[in-house]
Amino acid sequence: MPGLGDATRGRILYGGDYNPEQWPEETWPEDVRLMRQAGVNTVTLGVFSWAKLEPRPGERDFGWLDRIVDLMGEAGIGVVLATPTASPPPWMGHLHPDTLPRDEEGRTEWWGGRQHFSHSSATYRRYAAAITEDLAARYAGHPALTMWHINNEYCTYDWGDEAAARFRDWLRDRHGTLDALNTAWGTAFWSQGYGDWAEVVPPRHPHYLKNPAQVLDFKRFTSDMLLECYTAERDIVRRHSPHLPVTTNFMPLWAGQDAWRWAEEEDVVSVDLYPDPRDPFGAQEGALVQDMTRSQARGPWMLMEQAAGPVNWRGVNHPKPRGLNRLWSLQAVARGADAVCYFQWRQSRQGAEKFHSGMVSHAGERGRTYQEVTRLGADLARIAPHVAGTHSTARVAVLHDWHSWWAGDQDARPSREVDHPGMLRAWHRALWQAHLTADFAHPEHDLSAYPLVLVPQLYLLTDTAVDNLLAHVHGGGTLVCGFLTGVADEDDRVRPGGMDARLRDLFGIRTLHEWWPLDAGETVACEGFHGTLWSEELEADGTADATTPYKGGELDGLPAVLRKGRAWYVSTLPEPEALRDLLTRIAAGAGVRPVLDGLPAQVEAVRRGDLLFLLNHGREPVAVDLPGPHHDLLTGADVTGRVTLGRHGAAVLRP
Amino acid sequence: MPGLGDATRGRILYGGDYNPEQWPEETWPEDVRLMRQAGVNTVTLGVFSWAKLEPRPGERDFGWLDRIVDLMGEAGIGVVLATPTASPPPWMGHLHPDTLPRDEEGRTEWWGGRQHFSHSSATYRRYAAAITEDLAARYAGHPALTMWHINNEYCTYDWGDEAAARFRDWLRDRHGTLDALNTAWGTAFWSQGYGDWAEVVPPRHPHYLKNPAQVLDFKRFTSDMLLECYTAERDIVRRHSPHLPVTTNFMPLWAGQDAWRWAEEEDVVSVDLYPDPRDPFGAQEGALVQDMTRSQARGPWMLMEQAAGPVNWRGVNHPKPRGLNRLWSLQAVARGADAVCYFQWRQSRQGAEKFHSGMVSHAGERGRTYQEVTRLGADLARIAPHVAGTHSTARVAVLHDWHSWWAGDQDARPSREVDHPGMLRAWHRALWQAHLTADFAHPEHDLSAYPLVLVPQLYLLTDTAVDNLLAHVHGGGTLVCGFLTGVADEDDRVRPGGMDARLRDLFGIRTLHEWWPLDAGETVACEGFHGTLWSEELEADGTADATTPYKGGELDGLPAVLRKGRAWYVSTLPEPEALRDLLTRIAAGAGVRPVLDGLPAQVEAVRRGDLLFLLNHGREPVAVDLPGPHHDLLTGADVTGRVTLGRHGAAVLRP
Amino acid sequence: MPGLGDATRGRILYGGDYNPEQWPEETWPEDVRLMRQAGVNTVTLGVFSWAKLEPRPGERDFGWLDRIVDLMGEAGIGVVLATPTASPPPWMGHLHPDTLPRDEEGRTEWWGGRQHFSHSSATYRRYAAAITEDLAARYAGHPALTMWHINNEYCTYDWGDEAAARFRDWLRDRHGTLDALNTAWGTAFWSQGYGDWAEVVPPRHPHYLKNPAQVLDFKRFTSDMLLECYTAERDIVRRHSPHLPVTTNFMPLWAGQDAWRWAEEEDVVSVDLYPDPRDPFGAQEGALVQDMTRSQARGPWMLMEQAAGPVNWRGVNHPKPRGLNRLWSLQAVARGADAVCYFQWRQSRQGAEKFHSGMVSHAGERGRTYQEVTRLGADLARIAPHVAGTHSTARVAVLHDWHSWWAGDQDARPSREVDHPGMLRAWHRALWQAHLTADFAHPEHDLSAYPLVLVPQLYLLTDTAVDNLLAHVHGGGTLVCGFLTGVADEDDRVRPGGMDARLRDLFGIRTLHEWWPLDAGETVACEGFHGTLWSEELEADGTADATTPYKGGELDGLPAVLRKGRAWYVSTLPEPEALRDLLTRIAAGAGVRPVLDGLPAQVEAVRRGDLLFLLNHGREPVAVDLPGPHHDLLTGADVTGRVTLGRHGAAVLRP
Repeated sequence: MPGLGDATRGRILYGGDYNPEQWPEETWPEDVRLMRQAGVNTVTLGVFSWAKLEPRPGERDFGWLDRIVDLMGEAGIGVVLATPTASPPPWMGHLHPDTLPRDEEGRTEWWGGRQHFSHSSATYRRYAAAITEDLAARYAGHPALTMWHINNEYCTYDWGDEAAARFRDWLRDRHGTLDALNTAWGTAFWSQGYGDWAEVVPPRHPHYLKNPAQVLDFKRFTSDMLLECYTAERDIVRRHSPHLPVTTNFMPLWAGQDAWRWAEEEDVVSVDLYPDPRDPFGAQEGALVQDMTRSQARGPWMLMEQAAGPVNWRGVNHPKPRGLNRLWSLQAVARGADAVCYFQWRQSRQGAEKFHSGMVSHAGERGRTYQEVTRLGADLARIAPHVAGTHSTARVAVLHDWHSWWAGDQDARPSREVDHPGMLRAWHRALWQAHLTADFAHPEHDLSAYPLVLVPQLYLLTDTAVDNLLAHVHGGGTLVCGFLTGVADEDDRVRPGGMDARLRDLFGIRTLHEWWPLDAGETVACEGFHGTLWSEELEADGTADATTPYKGGELDGLPAVLRKGRAWYVSTLPEPEALRDLLTRIAAGAGVRPVLDGLPAQVEAVRRGDLLFLLNHGREPVAVDLPGPHHDLLTGADVTGRVTLGRHGAAVLRP
Repeated sequence: MPGLGDATRGRILYGGDYNPEQWPEETWPEDVRLMRQAGVNTVTLGVFSWAKLEPRPGERDFGWLDRIVDLMGEAGIGVVLATPTASPPPWMGHLHPDTLPRDEEGRTEWWGGRQHFSHSSATYRRYAAAITEDLAARYAGHPALTMWHINNEYCTYDWGDEAAARFRDWLRDRHGTLDALNTAWGTAFWSQGYGDWAEVVPPRHPHYLKNPAQVLDFKRFTSDMLLECYTAERDIVRRHSPHLPVTTNFMPLWAGQDAWRWAEEEDVVSVDLYPDPRDPFGAQEGALVQDMTRSQARGPWMLMEQAAGPVNWRGVNHPKPRGLNRLWSLQAVARGADAVCYFQWRQSRQGAEKFHSGMVSHAGERGRTYQEVTRLGADLARIAPHVAGTHSTARVAVLHDWHSWWAGDQDARPSREVDHPGMLRAWHRALWQAHLTADFAHPEHDLSAYPLVLVPQLYLLTDTAVDNLLAHVHGGGTLVCGFLTGVADEDDRVRPGGMDARLRDLFGIRTLHEWWPLDAGETVACEGFHGTLWSEELEADGTADATTPYKGGELDGLPAVLRKGRAWYVSTLPEPEALRDLLTRIAAGAGVRPVLDGLPAQVEAVRRGDLLFLLNHGREPVAVDLPGPHHDLLTGADVTGRVTLGRHGAAVLRP
Repeated sequence: MPGLGDATRGRILYGGDYNPEQWPEETWPEDVRLMRQAGVNTVTLGVFSWAKLEPRPGERDFGWLDRIVDLMGEAGIGVVLATPTASPPPWMGHLHPDTLPRDEEGRTEWWGGRQHFSHSSATYRRYAAAITEDLAARYAGHPALTMWHINNEYCTYDWGDEAAARFRDWLRDRHGTLDALNTAWGTAFWSQGYGDWAEVVPPRHPHYLKNPAQVLDFKRFTSDMLLECYTAERDIVRRHSPHLPVTTNFMPLWAGQDAWRWAEEEDVVSVDLYPDPRDPFGAQEGALVQDMTRSQARGPWMLMEQAAGPVNWRGVNHPKPRGLNRLWSLQAVARGADAVCYFQWRQSRQGAEKFHSGMVSHAGERGRTYQEVTRLGADLARIAPHVAGTHSTARVAVLHDWHSWWAGDQDARPSREVDHPGMLRAWHRALWQAHLTADFAHPEHDLSAYPLVLVPQLYLLTDTAVDNLLAHVHGGGTLVCGFLTGVADEDDRVRPGGMDARLRDLFGIRTLHEWWPLDAGETVACEGFHGTLWSEELEADGTADATTPYKGGELDGLPAVLRKGRAWYVSTLPEPEALRDLLTRIAAGAGVRPVLDGLPAQVEAVRRGDLLFLLNHGREPVAVDLPGPHHDLLTGADVTGRVTLGRHGAAVLRP
């Protein structure tokens, strides 16, 4: 199979979405000039070009695309060619209303925006296959082509009638019989027993609470239907160009796709990343997504979209202060990216995203944005030979699973204050602040490479996953579990005792009497720290090696944290500093050390291959002590003992 | 007619909803063992069993129900048998979409939750009658049966087409002619005159404000349609078992049912009660609902559902601290309950309520919850012989009427900060804190038993009700009215002068110039206290015996409180302590004294029959001085002078 | 053409909406007595009378209207006769569902409220024309008639199918060809190219962001469709009574109508005005609307609706404190009104507005409201001979344009904290506090009368408007522009550089690098003041005469305010006092002085004709120094040197 390396060929890809059809062709040579000046070596074409390519059903207009692909080829800029299927032309919804999705309240999603296609519509899929076939046939052999990009940010749902029919098919595949479905969904509750497959529908707007197992399966179904849309197009382009890698771009921590499953179907894993420049934890958000994407890619990955300046979809959209675009781009490279790309090359003058920045902003060539983009292009070219294709290694794994998220973050649970991504962020933040680089892993993955495994929260654990955790500890690994872990089996059935018995035994818990969720902003005192969000009324079985008790209140004296050998259970969410200290201590016990010792708080340090990346997230310069002499690839300078990083500055150091 | 006594037969019923169909039959004997160990003597079966009993239209599967009813009978545990009509099986909505309700925006309420039935659907009613008929025929004579439970928490609305037809029928019955309807609804306003009955529809989503009289009639219609559903099933089971009492469970202070009217159609009045364990006024909320239910029952009543631990439908669901379940259960008994039951016996492992606690929680027999349930079962058995069937008497009545609530709490009124239940709670809280036990009454009820009658707010008063209030005062009773009382007649027509002229005369008010609602959090100074929510620009007619003026602001010097003989008018909502003191003083003047004098704030005292219940709502022990020697039925100890109650402790004292 | 003067004939019109059909005819003579006592000389009849006039399709019942019009005529009270087309009778929606609007999510707006008509429905328009024709034919010659009032507060939208067809017609008229539409809407973005007119629909609920140019055109279309409804009825009544002026009442600063365009089609410009009596800036809100309406009318205008006391549609509806009704009414006269009218004469007892005050409140003749109304009637009669028909002159113009508002206040823009009316209010407030009287003007209007022109924000500027601004400055005028001005052209296409190049040149801006919107509540330091809401990363071109820099932060040292000759650019929203001081200083430089110097803050001073109005918005008396001797028309007193105004007092002074 081809991979990202076939597109990078020793370079870091640098560029972005390019929508030449929005501009008069006279602009194109100017674009080429500016691209070359900025070091752009890749553009993504065609993402939303369906109406241009197929202005009427069955018609084709490839002329303009021929011209721009040729132009890119002549300029030595590689082309990632997208299938345009994320936004069907208006004629499709008009002629085929069956292609439009319905939301859970029965409302149609109309054309006039984007992504108004039903993943279950046979009509849509037929048209999508046809345009993909013709695109692939025409461009598969073009020398400028380096990669295929399928659709864009798959993210739709459909509760309509054709989706209902496909849902029934999917359920038949999963459960086999209606009896099995009734069992898995617990339909004895509230008189929901199905006597005929035809009665089964998506979880549409009910009078009162939905069946959570039905909702869980509907989310699984949705991810799978979208994946079918993806693989159908992928298989077409692969047939025409088996030498070219294929990707589709994820939205980070997006609830709608099981990205572990999807990543297996991609040659290149790519992601879109838009931390808020004003978010004091924006850099950590970036690190989390980068670690997650690298883990899904099991190696170098592609930053498909980021913003050179502000986005347009927040309430208040802040631009990137001077230096931040470069800093966050280098962070992505540090954490495994071999491609740094933007939405989009040239900021649109019209349409819903005309206030979303581009590499060339409204201010044009003279604008600060383009100036900084040009500087970054040179930086990336400089470090690329030492970076491209190299791997980073982490010795901590954080477990994450979409199915657990889908099952856990529903209505009618102990606390709506607790959410799966929030738990991931809190635990990852503790590691990030401790300068401990982490991978993410699926709970059924092989964990043998990781001395330390963390489970911020996995409400749902399959039996296989439970076995995997036990095996990890029994094999000498350290495990730290947060609360609400192992509560449900794979059908969202609460396990006897409210938590898997083998896990209780692992931690030394006899009885889980009650969950005591905390109100927003409330804290609970524990010996040595305060907890947030949650607490638990646990009865230990006396086998734990150590416990940290709750202090005062209803839980006074009961265990807040249990340690039994290398297995730890943390029944609250310690405040950030406490969690950082706890995990640092446990990591040290497991032989896992920070990237560097004594780092200032505002500096992030990451190793990739034999390189050390230092990133100053602060606005003030800072000095960092180095273990021995290094060569800074960015400046070309040799540094010994100490390196100084300016505001938002970075160093890429070779020992 | 049979009553609750026919089911209790000298006991306090103790148990809860039991859903054996959710569990393998092997679990059933274990359930019996645990029930007996806990003192359970009643279970409610079949509440959501329709799909099990009628898996396909017209089919019947009673086998499993036969077995469990027999098993209960053998164990000496009485069965409350429910009709399963609150949740039709999926086949019904699938085959008969006309059974599904529509909301006011036209959206369908789908199956997949519960209560997805239209109260107006002839098809639904036909199926409901048929299954009820067959259930009644089969089990009416079963010796284990003690009571019938119809449906569950009736609470649905329907704005659809069949409901529209039924609404027109109902309106024809109420108003007779279209002219009368036009008059009652004031359709001369905004060109809403109806020329044909076919034009009349439920108050569906409009461009701008709805007609309030139409909304009022729609709420009346809704309550009546649900009541028709109830009585239809009740009449069927009564025909088969005239010896068994019939109930349906209310939700407390639920807007959708006129519970005064409904209670007349029940043999046993039952209610579901779920105060938030974290609510500092949770105990008072319980007392209010218990007082209301006792008043509707005119004697002992049934606590059909409460939670042994946390519920699942709040944002954050707190468990019950140690002792609270027992305390609140004894409070219900103190305030008239002869049955203390739970939703549900065994916590579900699947479905939308798997995080709602049960008497047997996920932690099982060893869990704190079950241990406390067992202790309470013994307590109840101990006190039952002295309690069951006895009455409590109150000398204060608080007036409440659903029609007034429906008319008053609409859009486009002086202040959305004011709501009917909030006013009830505020006034009842003042009594509760003053240790004054209150009944609730309908404004047209005979009030002669009550020296003191309170009207927190009755925006709508019928002429009969006004006469009733006047007669009460003229007959020597004391009356205290809160603001916005007597504003509208029974068609929600504002009475001339903005308040009924006879009431104005009763209080000594010449002119009500303006209502001055207060902003959220705003207060208004009055002589001696501060008011909240509301104030009024009143002109007295000089006949009042005493007035308390507003101080400062626009209303400076105008009367805030008027007293004319035994009639009081309070034109603001005094802050809690001020309202407590005011009502205590007025009560004393009317010869109404607290249950005990000198009680600590955290202790609630209630008399039932010749027993005195003392309840410590605090977490710290407290001592209570007693008037003479008593025998504590819970401990078996004789106490003289003073009794000490532990954390959440209680005493049930016989003089 | 007839005008307001034909109705006033030297008087100030005083009265309001009168709905006699809501009352028994016995009440009518009592109404006449109270009207005459209060000085009422005009009533508006028939606004919501359609169902009374046409109880069944095609029937007519004019008898009651004949009687009340005659009665008014006999009493010497003029009649403004309304077409009843704002609220079709129930039979219309029932027989013709095509007359009901659909919202953007497809939900029907049902009868039972008001304004449930589709502006695009041919059926509705046919019925509306017919009833208008018959009304006009019958009453055109009635001597009591003084004016026609068409419909009421036009304010509806429709996303349904007939509206879609009309939208296509409208777009064909505007754009000519589909190619032109595709260009104007920028449909190359997100694959929205239209291949057939039939594919074009209103901007219905999409999956993700709508096309902003489509939304802009839909708002233009909506305003134009409503205007067609208006002119169709206007033309009918004009044909029957060419001597009578015609109006329709605006809602102030209502987004749905381009009131500049509408005002051209009216003989009398009228408006409904409801500031919150609790709003500390209520008086300024009134002044703004009055200035706007006067500017649309280009002379005297009609206050069609205000409230004598509270309204009913806020969360908390505060009454008007003693004196406020009179004060705010005199303010309207001061700012150009020749008619002071209310919704409504007599407060309704039924219907959705029964808690909206009337001139005769629920308290009736004795109520404070009516007493104050009577006093005001006498005041207006006293000053009318000196006021009616006179003009006020302002030397400052504030530019405002609905199209800019429609384009600017959409989703997906730099900041949702910024809104067009908010910017208007902030800048107008600064003028109001500086006692500078302002007109409003459209950006393409002749501005030569104004030494000073302010642009709080005009995101969209046509080329003609840009030329107009440049000509203003080149012709010697002073111009002050707020941020986000001149960003887009008339199709909402961002101009190259993010701001029109000619404007940048005008202010001395070379490059607009980035917009830096501020978070809610955030401020930015500038030299001498703080800014709010917004800041900008600007690079000056060195031609400005003066700049005020940002201090600290990312923009440290960059220009916040630029002045180049008489052109000023303000790239943030200065805090209120700073903006007031800045504009006062610039005004002084442009030779524009306050109405009076040294006025206390709570006093508003306005000149109309040769009269000076002084208005005390405070609750405490206040003394004002006068330039020379005056005669107070309200008291009849001569005042010299200084006049004292009581609580909410006013003086109308002739030199």
